[in-house]
Amino acid sequence: MVRQVIGNARPRVLKHQVIREKLDRMLDDMQVGDPFPAEREIAELFDVARETVRQAVRELLLAGRVERRGRTTVVAAPKLLQPLGMGSYTEAAREEGHAVDRFLVGWTTLAADETLAEVLRIDVGAEVLQLERVFTTDGVRVGLETSRLPAYRFPGLVQHFDYRTSLYAEIRSRGVVFAKTVDTIDAALPDARESALLTVDARTPMFLLNRVSYDQRGVPIEQRRSLYRGDRMTFTIVMEDSV
Amino acid sequence: MVRQVIGNARPRVLKHQVIREKLDRMLDDMQVGDPFPAEREIAELFDVARETVRQAVRELLLAGRVERRGRTTVVAAPKLLQPLGMGSYTEAAREEGHAVDRFLVGWTTLAADETLAEVLRIDVGAEVLQLERVFTTDGVRVGLETSRLPAYRFPGLVQHFDYRTSLYAEIRSRGVVFAKTVDTIDAALPDARESALLTVDARTPMFLLNRVSYDQRGVPIEQRRSLYRGDRMTFTIVMEDSV
Repeated sequence: MVRQVIGNARPRVLKHQVIREKLDRMLDDMQVGDPFPAEREIAELFDVARETVRQAVRELLLAGRVERRGRTTVVAAPKLLQPLGMGSYTEAAREEGHAVDRFLVGWTTLAADETLAEVLRIDVGAEVLQLERVFTTDGVRVGLETSRLPAYRFPGLVQHFDYRTSLYAEIRSRGVVFAKTVDTIDAALPDARESALLTVDARTPMFLLNRVSYDQRGVPIEQRRSLYRGDRMTFTIVMEDSV
Repeated sequence: MVRQVIGNARPRVLKHQVIREKLDRMLDDMQVGDPFPAEREIAELFDVARETVRQAVRELLLAGRVERRGRTTVVAAPKLLQPLGMGSYTEAAREEGHAVDRFLVGWTTLAADETLAEVLRIDVGAEVLQLERVFTTDGVRVGLETSRLPAYRFPGLVQHFDYRTSLYAEIRSRGVVFAKTVDTIDAALPDARESALLTVDARTPMFLLNRVSYDQRGVPIEQRRSLYRGDRMTFTIVMEDSV
């Protein structure tokens, strides 16, 4: 057997990882919503310390295998698989058969500062419409999306747009074509307001996506900041060589 | 001015966000490696509570604008921008002009369990080579990569491969062509061993990428698990409509 190991850094298996694997197998046989055993019970079952169980359960929470419902822990639905793409993530979730809803946090009118003016290629001080929404899938709050659009291009949007529907669909219905998107993806923690809006623990790792969309003439359509729960969402991407 | 706001959830600006913005502007005029003022000094300068400053600095740490060096905080180098792609992230970083290095955590030979056998399309129990490495850019540990390869396909790899070089380049030099990759991207926290290997705080949000690469005949080449520091890396992706 080939084995070459430096220092004490070899992939030894930690106690809580052993418990985590046992719990993972247990979860495979359970149904979404089933109550998960209490830490005390698990500790007794496997004859390990409560602290070891706590670490293992913490990992299961972050991995989205279980979730807290008040004081109890239950089996969570599988994480949402979201293909990275130009479209709307809510539209993608709906196509996957999930019940999608959105609620309004607020509409705000901003005057573009230098940074925003440069991104949206408008004048400094020009009016920008900002829409902030929480979106839910299967009743769970999974993302907080902030869209900023140049007001001159979308007259009547605030008055007529139904915030429960797709903003991308609304934009397309006005004859605007999404031809290019530029995204950055960061890993982040939510701040206090974001934790409250998404009802997550402040230590939950999140995805932070910043996107600028462009039409066929290269004119910016929208700047969007999306914060998604890392314990509820996995991004997927398939790349193929076109040769 | 159009304004429609629900409840008390409107985008009010929190005190620590005001301080964060002031510190962001201060950082714009500083050089990488410059010492950052102490919390006490910042609190006095802006006449706010130490706790407010602590929150703002914590955000700057997670955003990778400053970093701890022992007991002092210094201005950090910009985060690495990594285009999502089929290639090697270390190769991409080097093309961007960064000094890239890798060190060996360990080589291990595994017997494929059912899951790994299915992923790599080999027999259960077949030999798998596992290489674990930390990679650094500009002297900073940014990622922990675990590659698993079917042993039958890469004879002599453990004996002859220089772990400081690119594994993708080595595989290509053996006549294997990467034709397709399937990735999932999760947000995660590091466990104790991972925090130690990457010298990060256990509360640092991380990217966890799981990839399977395939050759032109659709045969799996490698399964790779990569953990990247969220405070040191931003992924970027540009999508264009091919119509």
